[in-house]
Amino acid sequence: MIIFGLDPAIRTTGYGVVRAEGPSRYEIIDCGVIENKKTMPHSECLRRLYGGVNELIDLYMPDCAAMEEPFVGRNSKTAIILGMARGGIIAALAVRGIPVYSYMPSVAKRAAVGNGGAAKEQVAYLLAAELKIDVSQIPLDSTDALSLAICHAQRHFHPELGKLGKSV
Amino acid sequence: MIIFGLDPAIRTTGYGVVRAEGPSRYEIIDCGVIENKKTMPHSECLRRLYGGVNELIDLYMPDCAAMEEPFVGRNSKTAIILGMARGGIIAALAVRGIPVYSYMPSVAKRAAVGNGGAAKEQVAYLLAAELKIDVSQIPLDSTDALSLAICHAQRHFHPELGKLGKSV
Repeated sequence: MIIFGLDPAIRTTGYGVVRAEGPSRYEIIDCGVIENKKTMPHSECLRRLYGGVNELIDLYMPDCAAMEEPFVGRNSKTAIILGMARGGIIAALAVRGIPVYSYMPSVAKRAAVGNGGAAKEQVAYLLAAELKIDVSQIPLDSTDALSLAICHAQRHFHPELGKLGKSV
Repeated sequence: MIIFGLDPAIRTTGYGVVRAEGPSRYEIIDCGVIENKKTMPHSECLRRLYGGVNELIDLYMPDCAAMEEPFVGRNSKTAIILGMARGGIIAALAVRGIPVYSYMPSVAKRAAVGNGGAAKEQVAYLLAAELKIDVSQIPLDSTDALSLAICHAQRHFHPELGKLGKSV
């Protein structure tokens, strides 16, 4: 099973691609960041996010995707912009028929590295150690996305660890 | 010139398609609503919004699109969902290379019917009278979208009426 983890933002969207064959058998097959320069208009950012996710789908043919439940802060201007990134990315997945599940960020990190409050650096370090890869291969802004994909893999293969995330 | 007006929301997105040959020569060539049932998950709503806008683009080959500047209310949960609808629709336009401009809703209504505070019913009635069409042909939820398209047409042909909207 191939699972995408996605951590959307208009300027820096993290992604992780995990192949899972069981709760304790998974590997990172790709991770990275879709970067949009600060000077780019939102429409161009959304074109790049939509197109970037679409390319990743072509490459890896995922079975499903996991995203964060959106954090609802106080600032509704920020919330609209975060929502736009999220909407462009969910549209890209939905057009290709890929189901999307959402998890609380703390739940995802606890599943991936055993600590729901872990910093990005810790997540990268612990995943690298566990999977015996070089930590420099894991961009910090892809650690949340990787945690989400790993969390979904665990729940899929071991339902006793917790329910699958909400269908988005 | 063909201009789309779009008024996004996750459940009810209004659209208007206006052909303009000058500031006082325009006609409505289509208007309507993309409806998503309350029971549909967000991913399915976004698939339908993206697909619906894409179909409208195939049909009418617009030169540009006009949208509202998003209203920033106090509720950031609502703002994320509005942002998602907006993001899915802007992605559909951007992937097809259609430039998007935004206007304040009051500016658009003032341009279309002379009254920035007009209710949807008034906008429908006044547009129908001006264009000599039956008011029942204009769904109320498409009136904001039509005002946006007409506003953009006016500013395009008569720059002395005001600046073009912000590029999105």
